[in-house]
Amino acid sequence: MSHTYPRVIDPEIQLKVINSLKKPEIVVIDTMNFWIESKKDKVIEAIAKSDVLILNEGEARELFKTPSLVKAAKNSLKLGIKAVIIKKGEHGSLLFTKDDHFNCPGYPLEDVIDPTGCGDSFGGAFISHYSKSKDMKKAMVYASVIASFNAEGFGLSSLQKVSMDDIEKRYREMVSLRSF
Amino acid sequence: MSHTYPRVIDPEIQLKVINSLKKPEIVVIDTMNFWIESKKDKVIEAIAKSDVLILNEGEARELFKTPSLVKAAKNSLKLGIKAVIIKKGEHGSLLFTKDDHFNCPGYPLEDVIDPTGCGDSFGGAFISHYSKSKDMKKAMVYASVIASFNAEGFGLSSLQKVSMDDIEKRYREMVSLRSF
Repeated sequence: MSHTYPRVIDPEIQLKVINSLKKPEIVVIDTMNFWIESKKDKVIEAIAKSDVLILNEGEARELFKTPSLVKAAKNSLKLGIKAVIIKKGEHGSLLFTKDDHFNCPGYPLEDVIDPTGCGDSFGGAFISHYSKSKDMKKAMVYASVIASFNAEGFGLSSLQKVSMDDIEKRYREMVSLRSF
Repeated sequence: MSHTYPRVIDPEIQLKVINSLKKPEIVVIDTMNFWIESKKDKVIEAIAKSDVLILNEGEARELFKTPSLVKAAKNSLKLGIKAVIIKKGEHGSLLFTKDDHFNCPGYPLEDVIDPTGCGDSFGGAFISHYSKSKDMKKAMVYASVIASFNAEGFGLSSLQKVSMDDIEKRYREMVSLRSF
């Protein structure tokens, strides 16, 4: 089972956690193939009780049974959530809300050492930035920057050495690489 | 040979065409797996005599023997060209020049009917826009829009119906989906 070891917790535990919260400001949820395949109904139920769904493109296609990420996003919004973020690894990430769509690029890395945990770094950085900024798009760009540092070393080796200056420098590069 | 039918002409013919040009303003070249595998030296020679290389991510990785698109781009610039554009299908496209990098998103299509020819639509639209605007980045965004219409119908069925208004509308959407 080494390939499917569930890094994301059981959706039934996610539901218990969500139900125990008193007036949460925002609930951000993720999932993974293991639970989509084994407890899909509970995954859907937990998503429906959340505000923002973050998942990767493979999970989005699997969960909503469509090759189209736009369709997967629309179907996830129908569950009542405010926003869905689809992560695409080096290709960046997409944000869909009812009225808006945002395309966040991946930071152009020359050397990827270990992508393990990039999705989790992305999620953590997104929540952290959003909790202060209330700006999902900027939070995604910062999250993409943090994930890029994660990929440059094994485990946390690269992330542990990163300074706020390093982060701001890459953020400015992200702004510039999409200007035209 | 149906899978490898060369839509792109033989690099030896590309070289003859390039050598026959008198002071061309710009030479934009593409290639494909068939020629990379059978006449790689000639492909490299033809690229070195061009200004802009357009190829897809698979071709870029194959030609420069690296999984890293950033490395592939840097190696292609070492051949002396001014710019390289790497197409990534629904994930958009990347432009690399000596001093600059641009990330062009793919237009978020809900239904892809037939992606055949999208790369060629992209290339044609890029050259057409660039010849007037001299702006590679804007030309890429327009090219991405044209490719998105291509994908929405079999063959040319969708592209033939597209108006300039349709194109401008999608261009404005492309501007908006990358603003933060």
